[in-house]
Amino acid sequence: MDPEGSLFVFGVDGLGEISPGDDLAALIAEHASLLEGDVVVVTQKIVSKAEGRTVRIGTSDPEAKRLLAESEAVRVLRRRGDLVVTETRHGFVCANSGVDLSNVAEGWAVLLPEDPDRSARRLRDGLRARTGQRIAVIISDTFGRAWRRGVTDVALGCAGIRPVVDLRGTKDALGRELVATEVCVVDEVASAADLVMGKARSVPVAVVRGVDPAFLGEGAVIEEVVRPYAEDLFR
Amino acid sequence: MDPEGSLFVFGVDGLGEISPGDDLAALIAEHASLLEGDVVVVTQKIVSKAEGRTVRIGTSDPEAKRLLAESEAVRVLRRRGDLVVTETRHGFVCANSGVDLSNVAEGWAVLLPEDPDRSARRLRDGLRARTGQRIAVIISDTFGRAWRRGVTDVALGCAGIRPVVDLRGTKDALGRELVATEVCVVDEVASAADLVMGKARSVPVAVVRGVDPAFLGEGAVIEEVVRPYAEDLFR
Repeated sequence: MDPEGSLFVFGVDGLGEISPGDDLAALIAEHASLLEGDVVVVTQKIVSKAEGRTVRIGTSDPEAKRLLAESEAVRVLRRRGDLVVTETRHGFVCANSGVDLSNVAEGWAVLLPEDPDRSARRLRDGLRARTGQRIAVIISDTFGRAWRRGVTDVALGCAGIRPVVDLRGTKDALGRELVATEVCVVDEVASAADLVMGKARSVPVAVVRGVDPAFLGEGAVIEEVVRPYAEDLFR
Repeated sequence: MDPEGSLFVFGVDGLGEISPGDDLAALIAEHASLLEGDVVVVTQKIVSKAEGRTVRIGTSDPEAKRLLAESEAVRVLRRRGDLVVTETRHGFVCANSGVDLSNVAEGWAVLLPEDPDRSARRLRDGLRARTGQRIAVIISDTFGRAWRRGVTDVALGCAGIRPVVDLRGTKDALGRELVATEVCVVDEVASAADLVMGKARSVPVAVVRGVDPAFLGEGAVIEEVVRPYAEDLFR
């Protein structure tokens, strides 16, 4: 057991219902005791609500949701029943362009943030101003995957943490060069955070404490994690 | 902050080089103080080594690795340079059928366990016998993904933890039924564990403490996570 390299992950609750214009940094700083180097993971849902990224569709008809999802997409990759797998303007490949009707008032839908990395940077700056600490931020959402059943949480945007850490220059335990190990640490942190959030318990924020300081730094999910269409073997 | 719902993740080191026939349960029980409900995440590499799943290829030539990878596959999905994306006998879609030349003696390759869920059950039973505690086990490996750059750790096999937790029956915070939220918790736990393992530091085991007891139970990755070919929209 190595307490120095250990992680501690806890949820932050009690933020209340989020409305357009709410100051998430102030709310989070008020409800959590944050330390230098903490990574704060915030679910996309409350970021979108605070940014006013909700639209009134006036119905919970799956057809209306599908039409909205397609209007948010640059490309529809697959259709199966009510499900559309789309590519969003950001380049995310996900179900229904991330359009979501759960945890929002009846007849309303929540869209993804316009620029989740920018949302993360704003939150990071706000937390810095309020706490005096350097805090990293990840905006997370729940995506399905190819080839494997079940959803997991991934990062839509980040600030203060490197999205992909390239370990190619490092040696393995036997002293040989590692060939290709670019780890998407922001997705791993988002997944770790989801384990304390719980879909039904509706804990919208988690803190991951103890992330390797070598992972902290700058970078954007859109630039480093989203695989461009031309480079992708599976679209 | 809710300490009751928090996670604590730490690495277990000092197991030494693993050889065929080594008793991993004994080694892990000796090097970690395990508690009832802990999830022990073990990297595939040491499980394969303990099970003798290594082959001598006599070269580090990428071409030899590719040929071995194709011989381990039931289907080659994509080729690009030295990389082949394959479907293994288990149904995993991954690079090079999981064949790995790092952290193994020069000229040798490590294959995936024959039945990672069985490997996990054996380890679970061994840890139960040695500690008297009910411990869950996940065998993890590092896979690439469609659509997103960077690798993350996922579960190849598990025991004592439900691979996919179906939250469809539960209500969201506003009391409405959640439509489709089947969370692949074993992949999320594997990702959380990877954050304390570090590819280069070669910590082959991590303990995730505090996993929601509702996630503990029975199930197999091969049956619940691997998406059958016929059901997959992206193969």
